[in-house]
Amino acid sequence: MNQDKLPQVVDVSASRGARVQPVSPMAVSLAGRFWAPRLQRNREVSLPTQHALLESTGRLDNFRRVAGTSDAPYTGLFFNDSDIYKWLEAAAWAQVSGPVPELQALIDQTIPVVEAAQQPDGYLNTYHSLERADTRWSNLRDLHELYCAGHLMQAAVALNRVCGDARLLKVACRFADLIDEVFGPAEAGKLFMIDGHEEVEMGLIELARETGEDRYRRLARFFIEARGRGLLHGGRFGIDYFQDEQPFMAMTSLAGHAVRAVYMACGIADLALDEGDAAALAQLERLWTEMTRRRMYLSGGIGSRHEGEAFGKDFELPNARAYTETCAAIGSMMWCHRMLAATGDARYADLLEWTLYNGMLPGWGQDGRRYFYVNPLEDDGTHVRQSWYECSCCPPNVARTLGALPGYAYGSSEGALWVHLYIEGRATLPLGGGSVELIQRTDYPWDGAIAIEVGTPGRFALKLRVPGWCRGGVALSVNGEVVEVSAEPGSYLSLERDWQAGDIVRLALPMAVTPWQSHPQLHENRGRIALSRGPLLYCLEAQDQPRPLQELAIDPAGIEAVFEAATLGGVVVLRGQASARAPAPGWEQALYLPAEPDPGAGERVAFTAVPYFAWQNRGAAPMSVWMPRAHAMTP
Amino acid sequence: MNQDKLPQVVDVSASRGARVQPVSPMAVSLAGRFWAPRLQRNREVSLPTQHALLESTGRLDNFRRVAGTSDAPYTGLFFNDSDIYKWLEAAAWAQVSGPVPELQALIDQTIPVVEAAQQPDGYLNTYHSLERADTRWSNLRDLHELYCAGHLMQAAVALNRVCGDARLLKVACRFADLIDEVFGPAEAGKLFMIDGHEEVEMGLIELARETGEDRYRRLARFFIEARGRGLLHGGRFGIDYFQDEQPFMAMTSLAGHAVRAVYMACGIADLALDEGDAAALAQLERLWTEMTRRRMYLSGGIGSRHEGEAFGKDFELPNARAYTETCAAIGSMMWCHRMLAATGDARYADLLEWTLYNGMLPGWGQDGRRYFYVNPLEDDGTHVRQSWYECSCCPPNVARTLGALPGYAYGSSEGALWVHLYIEGRATLPLGGGSVELIQRTDYPWDGAIAIEVGTPGRFALKLRVPGWCRGGVALSVNGEVVEVSAEPGSYLSLERDWQAGDIVRLALPMAVTPWQSHPQLHENRGRIALSRGPLLYCLEAQDQPRPLQELAIDPAGIEAVFEAATLGGVVVLRGQASARAPAPGWEQALYLPAEPDPGAGERVAFTAVPYFAWQNRGAAPMSVWMPRAHAMTP
Repeated sequence: MNQDKLPQVVDVSASRGARVQPVSPMAVSLAGRFWAPRLQRNREVSLPTQHALLESTGRLDNFRRVAGTSDAPYTGLFFNDSDIYKWLEAAAWAQVSGPVPELQALIDQTIPVVEAAQQPDGYLNTYHSLERADTRWSNLRDLHELYCAGHLMQAAVALNRVCGDARLLKVACRFADLIDEVFGPAEAGKLFMIDGHEEVEMGLIELARETGEDRYRRLARFFIEARGRGLLHGGRFGIDYFQDEQPFMAMTSLAGHAVRAVYMACGIADLALDEGDAAALAQLERLWTEMTRRRMYLSGGIGSRHEGEAFGKDFELPNARAYTETCAAIGSMMWCHRMLAATGDARYADLLEWTLYNGMLPGWGQDGRRYFYVNPLEDDGTHVRQSWYECSCCPPNVARTLGALPGYAYGSSEGALWVHLYIEGRATLPLGGGSVELIQRTDYPWDGAIAIEVGTPGRFALKLRVPGWCRGGVALSVNGEVVEVSAEPGSYLSLERDWQAGDIVRLALPMAVTPWQSHPQLHENRGRIALSRGPLLYCLEAQDQPRPLQELAIDPAGIEAVFEAATLGGVVVLRGQASARAPAPGWEQALYLPAEPDPGAGERVAFTAVPYFAWQNRGAAPMSVWMPRAHAMTP
Repeated sequence: MNQDKLPQVVDVSASRGARVQPVSPMAVSLAGRFWAPRLQRNREVSLPTQHALLESTGRLDNFRRVAGTSDAPYTGLFFNDSDIYKWLEAAAWAQVSGPVPELQALIDQTIPVVEAAQQPDGYLNTYHSLERADTRWSNLRDLHELYCAGHLMQAAVALNRVCGDARLLKVACRFADLIDEVFGPAEAGKLFMIDGHEEVEMGLIELARETGEDRYRRLARFFIEARGRGLLHGGRFGIDYFQDEQPFMAMTSLAGHAVRAVYMACGIADLALDEGDAAALAQLERLWTEMTRRRMYLSGGIGSRHEGEAFGKDFELPNARAYTETCAAIGSMMWCHRMLAATGDARYADLLEWTLYNGMLPGWGQDGRRYFYVNPLEDDGTHVRQSWYECSCCPPNVARTLGALPGYAYGSSEGALWVHLYIEGRATLPLGGGSVELIQRTDYPWDGAIAIEVGTPGRFALKLRVPGWCRGGVALSVNGEVVEVSAEPGSYLSLERDWQAGDIVRLALPMAVTPWQSHPQLHENRGRIALSRGPLLYCLEAQDQPRPLQELAIDPAGIEAVFEAATLGGVVVLRGQASARAPAPGWEQALYLPAEPDPGAGERVAFTAVPYFAWQNRGAAPMSVWMPRAHAMTP
């Protein structure tokens, strides 16, 4: 297998700024009881049901009417085209481990529908066509034309990479050529304008990488550099909603619409990777660090504010009223993926993995048919997943991320092979001109024991991520012999040697339950703790508790982790002790009452926590991630 | 003085459903160190500075351009006319205790500007005139035409009542006549439509009361009865935003835009009062009770959600991200005022007073020049009052409420005189065909001792409100002799006798500090308490504490109340003990950290709380109403 020919999810193979190349998802197979059934469900349930919804909600008919093959009226939101493109991209990535005929058939039905709607000059947007043809480029701030174009480009690239199908690539290039003719410096007689929703930057750069056409990259650079000058004034939420208030290099924190902000960061990261722009990468690192220290939920979710789907102020992270769009978590993962390629810094792989399990995965119901758009960290039992949304950006975004997941797991650099994600399976990694097979055996994320068998002899450094949550030190052995290496949490440990086929590295990551507390300025969480184990955040769902959630305060000590095959399709649950106090009577008639005398410690009861990603899969019930800490019970 | 001729703030003198008549604000003078300087400041600072802003922001020029006397372009929001009207209403009420020549001069400048903009057919709205004349009545859902008309009517009525100035009344009636021609049952060939923002209902009913023209009341009934049928579909927030999802009588709780919801309730209360509609009043009582038990802040503020300026779900009452518009608190007071007239139930007077001090008053800076639109119960030190807003509904709303305040203080019914609000001053109350003077001496709200001197002999029941917050029993004497009466908190005690001039009733309301706790389902406040004393809610501002707010947990016991003349213009502060714990190091680099071992009780320090209404008057600093309770310190 020639590794150089295998496509990456994000192709930084020729990027001057890339330090660690991702390994192609086509060279990686993910197995094991956690991920294999989920990826299968994505292919067999989520993607087909989504396609049926694209059809039944008129999204495909919008294309057909432009092509003259349907006389249905335009239906839905003005950016519904992007759902088709994201679905096509997802259906491509879902085939990295081999063709899926049912999906390919749907792709083959869909591409001609898209092709037929392209205008003679290359323009393609079903909302701004026909009776609205004269609105083309008229409201870039609000109407998402270039956003849709960017998703078209990403879909086209994915189909070309995975399926060798260049049909959509031709469509995308024709459209990109038109965009390149229209947009650019005013002195060149072009339209000096940007899109209100970042996305086309990523799309153009991938298109440049895929086609070798640097014009597309230059156009992406134009859109990036034109931003931050207030071109998008006059919107309802102000120009920082669009990240257009100040140039990227002058920003001190990410603000405004969260998905836009991280998509912007991804596009800038792509450009900086290709150009080896150290200053831009350093600024990205600053903004990323700032985000993680001030504006991110413990779930990895971002964008706390409902108004404007936006980042709030520092420490504005309400639990029940969290917005935390699933797409924003996905955008954060995409950003982490790029930063990891640029730096090899384990912090990015840590957050990528954490957000995968705790920020994105909750957005996907365990039946593969329902999705959260909004991901609160506490709920009164009224928030439920839906099979579709009027603005249905999240479902196909989840699907494309799941499809591309194998491409996030491994990396390679000069003389080194990197294991970013611990997932049962095997991978063929490029090394020099050849390749090395690694076989990973683990029950992660349920268990911290990982065995990696080297399938191919050779000299290289094997870099294994020691997640930031590891406390108490990891255990490492090679062929049964204990190895002492530097293994700080939040770094890669490195084992360099002449490896023999059959060598087995065993890594044991401690999976103690971690009780977390929040920054003192995150006032809502004062006196509260949240629990995690390994890479998984936990929550309490009301149906598992002996008493209503609001009567419980939990003890961080003495919590046991138990795998329960019958719960939620098989999960590790956490069992511990809580202090329970029934409220005094009178609350039916009052919202506020004079405080009762301090009741001291309550009754001792047991509590059970389940992984947060799995919540609301057994009907709707109150849920909480952050729980009051039972003080009096702690020794 | 003929009491029958003196105007009420809301004229229910002929309302069949009115049980307790409000006493005219022109028969009441408010004095004392709390209210007298504030009412003076409203007259001398707030109203003149607001008028200057109406001028400088182009709101008056919008009228002049319609009249052809200005060629400035239309500026500002489409409902800016209403700010002029609310200011005119405020400037009328501000003269209930006597003419204020400076205000009268501004009124005399302003009325002709308004008059001149009225169209020949009676229409008056500066946004929907001239180049937008063809948009008249075209988007009732969003564009506030009838809302503005309602404020015109209220202003016209106030000017006629207080100043005997009928100029604007003529304008309002001409406009109301046009509206009556245009709107009504479809079968009558009229426009079957309602306004997206309730207000015209109140305006029309007051116009009917003032002019005796029942047509206006019937038109108000039409608008009330046409609501709840989904006429306002298609908006961004859904039809419950407009209270148009279901008929009023079918509602189980107030929802949607909070100001609209309570203005709707006020209009319905007005109609039900006039018509003696017991079913509507009972439904209003249910909705009011539901609001106070599920959707109201401890401040009395309502409308917790920024999106849609709306009521949230039950118990959705975030502290820092509270919306709690000042206008919504005012609307709640207006509703309470009407319900009190309908029932004589002390609960309404309780909430009216509580919201006056803790919901509305925080919206007004102590300099009389700055206003909060949004009233959080916790802040990181970034929320500051502004002298004006693009949507500047709150400043003139505060001013008209302050101006009308004397009209909220007393009531009368057959053989009974009611003291609703304890405020130093005097009042002349109607009794039979005559009147009785009451002289009230008190330092309320700082002190609970109230002396009421009867200035006129006569037989009547003197009804004194025992606020719901009174705990531990009140003390009552007449001419120095202790009187035992039923005096349940949240009721009126009643003293019926043949009163002599000079009789003195002394009432002592216990003003112990009350620590409050929240309903168990209001999760954010678990483990927290808030403090009040008398009718005043308190908060902690960072500048008064020895340690940052987030390090403090307060002890509900042993809190002392001390009047401090030098603080905030003279307020009672609360001084108590707190447990202080500095956070462990590491928070500069992290938003979440593994929980520290339980540190037990912290260092004992003193804390100081100030009245919530007075916060953010000494610069911007962190503030919190709800504070963690120091458990370990309590015996």
